[in-house]
Formats: sequence, C-alpha cells, structure tokens
Amino acid sequence: MGSTYSEINGPRLLADLRTLARFGKEGQGVNRLSFSPEDIEARAWLRGRMRDAGLNTQIDGVGNVFGQTPNVGRTVLIGSHTDTVPNGGWLDGAMGVIYGLEIARAMIEAGSLRDGGVDVISFADEESTYVVTLGSRSFVGELADSEITEGKSIVGETLVAALERAGYAGSARAALDPGRHTAYLEAHIEQGPRLEAEGKRIGVVTSIVGMRGMEASFQGQADHAGTTPMRLRKDAGAALFAFAAEVTAAFEETSAADTVWNFGHVVFEPGAGNVVPRAARLLIEYRDPSEGVLDAMETAVLKAADRVNREGKVVAETHRSFSLAPVAMNPNLVQCIEDSARHYKAPAVRMPSGAGHDAMHLARHLPTGMLFIPSIGGRSHDIAEDTSEEDIVLGAQVLARAVEAILAA
Amino acid sequence: MGSTYSEINGPRLLADLRTLARFGKEGQGVNRLSFSPEDIEARAWLRGRMRDAGLNTQIDGVGNVFGQTPNVGRTVLIGSHTDTVPNGGWLDGAMGVIYGLEIARAMIEAGSLRDGGVDVISFADEESTYVVTLGSRSFVGELADSEITEGKSIVGETLVAALERAGYAGSARAALDPGRHTAYLEAHIEQGPRLEAEGKRIGVVTSIVGMRGMEASFQGQADHAGTTPMRLRKDAGAALFAFAAEVTAAFEETSAADTVWNFGHVVFEPGAGNVVPRAARLLIEYRDPSEGVLDAMETAVLKAADRVNREGKVVAETHRSFSLAPVAMNPNLVQCIEDSARHYKAPAVRMPSGAGHDAMHLARHLPTGMLFIPSIGGRSHDIAEDTSEEDIVLGAQVLARAVEAILAA
Repeated sequence: MGSTYSEINGPRLLADLRTLARFGKEGQGVNRLSFSPEDIEARAWLRGRMRDAGLNTQIDGVGNVFGQTPNVGRTVLIGSHTDTVPNGGWLDGAMGVIYGLEIARAMIEAGSLRDGGVDVISFADEESTYVVTLGSRSFVGELADSEITEGKSIVGETLVAALERAGYAGSARAALDPGRHTAYLEAHIEQGPRLEAEGKRIGVVTSIVGMRGMEASFQGQADHAGTTPMRLRKDAGAALFAFAAEVTAAFEETSAADTVWNFGHVVFEPGAGNVVPRAARLLIEYRDPSEGVLDAMETAVLKAADRVNREGKVVAETHRSFSLAPVAMNPNLVQCIEDSARHYKAPAVRMPSGAGHDAMHLARHLPTGMLFIPSIGGRSHDIAEDTSEEDIVLGAQVLARAVEAILAA
Repeated sequence: MGSTYSEINGPRLLADLRTLARFGKEGQGVNRLSFSPEDIEARAWLRGRMRDAGLNTQIDGVGNVFGQTPNVGRTVLIGSHTDTVPNGGWLDGAMGVIYGLEIARAMIEAGSLRDGGVDVISFADEESTYVVTLGSRSFVGELADSEITEGKSIVGETLVAALERAGYAGSARAALDPGRHTAYLEAHIEQGPRLEAEGKRIGVVTSIVGMRGMEASFQGQADHAGTTPMRLRKDAGAALFAFAAEVTAAFEETSAADTVWNFGHVVFEPGAGNVVPRAARLLIEYRDPSEGVLDAMETAVLKAADRVNREGKVVAETHRSFSLAPVAMNPNLVQCIEDSARHYKAPAVRMPSGAGHDAMHLARHLPTGMLFIPSIGGRSHDIAEDTSEEDIVLGAQVLARAVEAILAA
C-alpha cells in the first residue's frame, strides 16, 4: 500500500465509449453481432486505441483484442466484451473493456507502474452469436478445438469462415499467463433494477449465480370442452396450472435472499377455447449463488411432477435443459472493491450477478472480481439501455483505485 | 294414446347411414363440408331417399333438404344436419336426419298416420363453414338477409356463390309451419363419454347448456429473469398463473352438477426462458344449464381480475368473447322420450347437452326435445367417432315410439 493512485480521465473515457458506440449504432443502442463488419471495424479501432495508449497489442486467432502494458512483471487483467446482442445496449460489455483501456492508459501516463500495470482484453463472442463465450474460454484454455471447427452462427456461417473473413484465422491465440496475471477484474452495468431501486451507485459482486433450466411437459387427452364432464377429463393444461402453483409455493418457501426464478414460456396443445388441452409444456429457470438452494428447488420441481403422476390422469415429465454451477468472486477482491468505493464515498452494496459473464471462466483460473454500476430502469440487452455519465465515471475511478491496491498488496 | 306403434327397420336405417357416409368418406369418418361437391351430392341422394319413402321433397334456397309426409294435418318435425366438420364422424348430425327418414317411412308403410305424420329436415351448414346454423335459423325466420349476402367460407367463397354453384339459389326457403309442426325432435350422438361411463344407452336431454367465452389478458413488463429481483418484477405470466388458480377455486365452489369449464389456450410473450413475461393471455370457456350459475362464474372471473389490478403490478383486462343463453327442452317431451326408453327397457338418464345443436333455434318456436345415444370413448368431430349398431337402432326405436305418443296425446 502507500503508493499513489492514478486519476482516470472521465471525459476521455466517455468519449471513447461514445466513439465505440458508433460502430453498429442503432438509435441509442448498438447492433454489433460478433464478426459482423461493424464488430470487425470496432475491434480494429479498439486495437488502435490500445496502441495509442502505449500497450503492446494483438488480435488473436479467435478475435480477442488484447493489449499489454509493456515493461512490467505483473498485471491486473481487465476486460469484458465489445460484441452485442441484436439491438443491444451501448454499454453492456463495451464499458468493461473501455474501463480497462482508460485505467491502463492513466497508469502509464502517471508512471504509476512500480507494482505492475494493467492488461486489457475484449473477449470475442461473449453473446454466443457463434460459440458461447468463445474468447474467454479460449484465453483460459477451456475451448475444445472442435468448438472452433464446428461453430456456426444462427444464419449458418461457420466460425472458421467468419475468422477467415475477419482476417483473424491463423493468428496465435492469446492465453492467460499465471506468472503475469495476478487478478481479473470485470466491470459491467448491472442489467437489473436493484442498485437504482436501493439508491446505490456501486454493486460489489460476490458471486455469479448458478442457474438451472428445466422443461416440464404434461400429456393428457384432448376432449370436447362442452360434453366431457370435469371428472372424466385428462386435462394437461389444468395439470400444468396446478403444477406451477405448487412449484411457486415451494420456491417461495425454499428461496434465499437472492433467489430468482422464471416461468418464461407455456404452450397448450391444441390451444383452442373449446378443446380440453391434450398436452402442455412449461419452461422453468431458477438461479441462486448456492448449489444447495438450486438442489432444493430442483427437488421441489420433481416432487410436484411426482404428485401429478400419482394422481394418474396426466403424465408429467421433467428434464434439466441446462445447469451452470455458481462461481464465487475472490473475497479479497470483493473487499478491495468495497474499500475503494468507500474511499470515493460511493454508496455500495454486495450482490450476486444474476447474469453470466466472461468472469465465470476466468474465476476458475485466477482471483476474479466484478463491479456493477446502475442500469437506468434496469434495462439491458435493449437499445434503451443507459447509465448516467456520473455513474460511468465513478465506476471507473473505483475500479482504478482497486487495481492499484491489488498491485500494491 | 292407444294407437299402435310402428316398428322401425333397423337394417334399412343402418344401410342408409352407411350409404350416406360414402359421400366424402375419410377412413372411418367423413369429410363433407357444407356445399362441397360431396355435400351437394349427399343432399341430392337424401332428397331421393325421402322421395322413395313417399315424402313431398324440396331443397330450399339455403340448402335445407325438407321432406313432408303427405295428406296429414299435423306432424312432428325430426331433423339435424348432414354437413360435417373437416375429418368429422360418420354419425354426428347425419344420424338424426336418417332417424327422421326411417321413422317417417316406417309410419307411412304401417299406415299409422291417424294422428299425423313426420316431416324430416336436414338443416344446412350447422357446422358453420359459411354461416353458423344457417339452415335452422332460416327455417325459424331468425336469419338476417345480410347474413346470406355477407356470408363467406374460411377459404373465402361467398355463400351466395356457393348457393349458385349448388343450384339452390332462387329456390323458396322452407319455413316452420306452426299450424302443422307440433314438436321438433333431434337425435344426436352424445359427443361425450358420460353415457358410456355410466352404462346408459339413452340420454334424455333436459336443456342445451348456456356458454360464455372470456379472454383474460395481462400486461406487465419484460425483464431479465436473472438480474431482476422477484419483488421488482411485473410478471404477466405469474399474474396469469395466480389468476387461473383463483378462478379455478371459485369455479369449483360455484359449479353445479353439470357445470364444465376449460382453460384452452395460454400465450406468454415474449415466451423465452430467461425473460420475465411482458404479456400473457388466457382463453376461458364455461357452460351450464343455468344462467345464474354462468353469472356467478363470470363474477368470479371479474373478481380475480380486480384482485390482480388492486395489487398494482400487472394490469388485467377481461372481456366476453361470446355468450349463448341456455335453452330448456320441453318437459312433456322429456317425459315422453323417457317413457319410451323405459318401454324398451333402455337404461336412460336425463342430462344436459354440452354442445350446441339446431334444436337451440327450434326451441324458441315450438316444443323441442332431444335424445342422445352413446359415443364410443366419447369421441366426436373426429373420424374415430363411432357408436354400436345396437345403440343406433335402439335410439331410433325409442324416438319412433315417442313421436307417435306425441301425436296421439
């Protein structure tokens, strides 16, 4: 400790963010799908800005844009992603990358590299246009070669063709360097309404929640809804309603402070007003930082399905469509970000991240921390996504102080 | 009373039914949509069979096939419809028409016309291919001229063009004759599983149930299902689930012996596993012989919507999409059909009709009665629809004795 801390340049940070938002501009938001012409141009621009900042740069074989502070032995790696979903927001992953650029640049300018510097990375295809979290999994060595050769976009272009087209194919793939990289930090907009609702300006992420997806299906029998007495029906829709009510009650009982769940999709077949539903399907997702809570929720789903089956009229089946384990952030980094927020008198709160981030993959390999700033109205993955400039600058300043504290420790 | 009763000819009845089923034959069922070539041919055939039976016949200006017993002052009108839904059953309306033909024919053969005879009618387009219950409403004088001029099929042919094509346009429209027609009787397959489940062979219809259709819609807000705390959501899907549970409980409380209801269709928007539903819609139908019960059920729907709105997160709206009043059958005719069933030692039960029939419209103008026979497995509006030949013949015999008892009374 005891080192001097660099001040970041707020107007320069905002100008870079606004410039980046012009690549694929769509109203107030951005359309910048992985390896689209706009995304490829944005990567070239980003590499140029890194070079201007004094970093050694490369765009690697899967499209990661990587800038390293020269002449330092240890660095904090800061990054996120600059690709977007269709009609996405201008901040989303872009902000975490430009935070890294600004902090690296400010430290180089200030000459505060005594304890080390910052490496910056924009991970490719976090939004899964071709392959889910392509860049960060490549960087930590968790990407199978077959994922590159077999990857395809929704419109059918192969990943190999996209990398050729972008000019990235054949370049070396950047990799985590455990001797150099002491920690990974990722800043992101919250993508939810909690900070705004609670009047906080900084979210200190304690974990990225685990999540499970389940599909429940119900098989009954179609009957005339006028001529079939209630007691003689095998009503798949009514079974789904009773199941959802039972699961909801059990989730309310089981849930911890940060548990969330969603019944996002329902289908009744044949779906006519005068026909008793023959079949029904329900998508269930639930998330929590604790694997134990997720297990208890899954048990509740299975139990409700068993109850339907014991009644013997409708056949219920459930299956897990996906499962992601919770990932804890490093407690020292949590403390470090919180201390930095307190230094700037920024109202902060510890909270889980309810969405996935590249940090999930980094956290298995080096100490990892995340910082959130508020999303206005909780909006994200939408062109309406926004955050006040004051909050954007404050977040970068809090992260910058945390970086130098980590290096000095 | 004291007159002799005519015996119907079972094999002849079955042969006519099997012949009629060849027009538009589709496996075990029939595809004979109103004014299709098959339907037009079937009408011509039916008129020929009526003529052979000794009836005065006509096909009227909307396609009703009408046969009248000559030289009698009073008749019981017996009818139903010979058109079908797509891939419909071979019995459905056809059976009620052929019952009328066979009973008229048997009475003419037996010379048992002292107290009157039978008129037979196949009402056009009961299944609403062009205009709902076109023929029966024309016959009782409840069809607006504009319905004829504006009627169109699902595939866009105008009713006027169809009637021209069939050669019916310009013919006079047959009409109820209160001086001649003393009662209307309609026999039909049950279209439900109740007779079979209870081991009965004759259903004596006490009323055609009233029915209402309602649509409930819920407007909330789409949010990220991982990053939005439960308490900050405006979840249209969860509101729909709670609403459906509340309405179901109220319906169970309110329902009488014959009440039925159905939640036949549900839509969540946008319908993704990881997005809190922005909007949701639900179709509700319910039926009962009593207007009071229907009113109480509608009140329950409105009350549940009010409760959602009072909670203030999601906006619920309901509207009636249709309403049909219950129609009571004539108590004397109910008794008469029941007595006839008893005479033949046929296990019978009084029951409402859960589906609509041409009899709904006739009942407003003359004493009307209906008789059901069992549907195997409750199947109807499906090529799998069937009834045992013994039940088909028994039903005709029971109806025949009821006809002569009515005329003798």
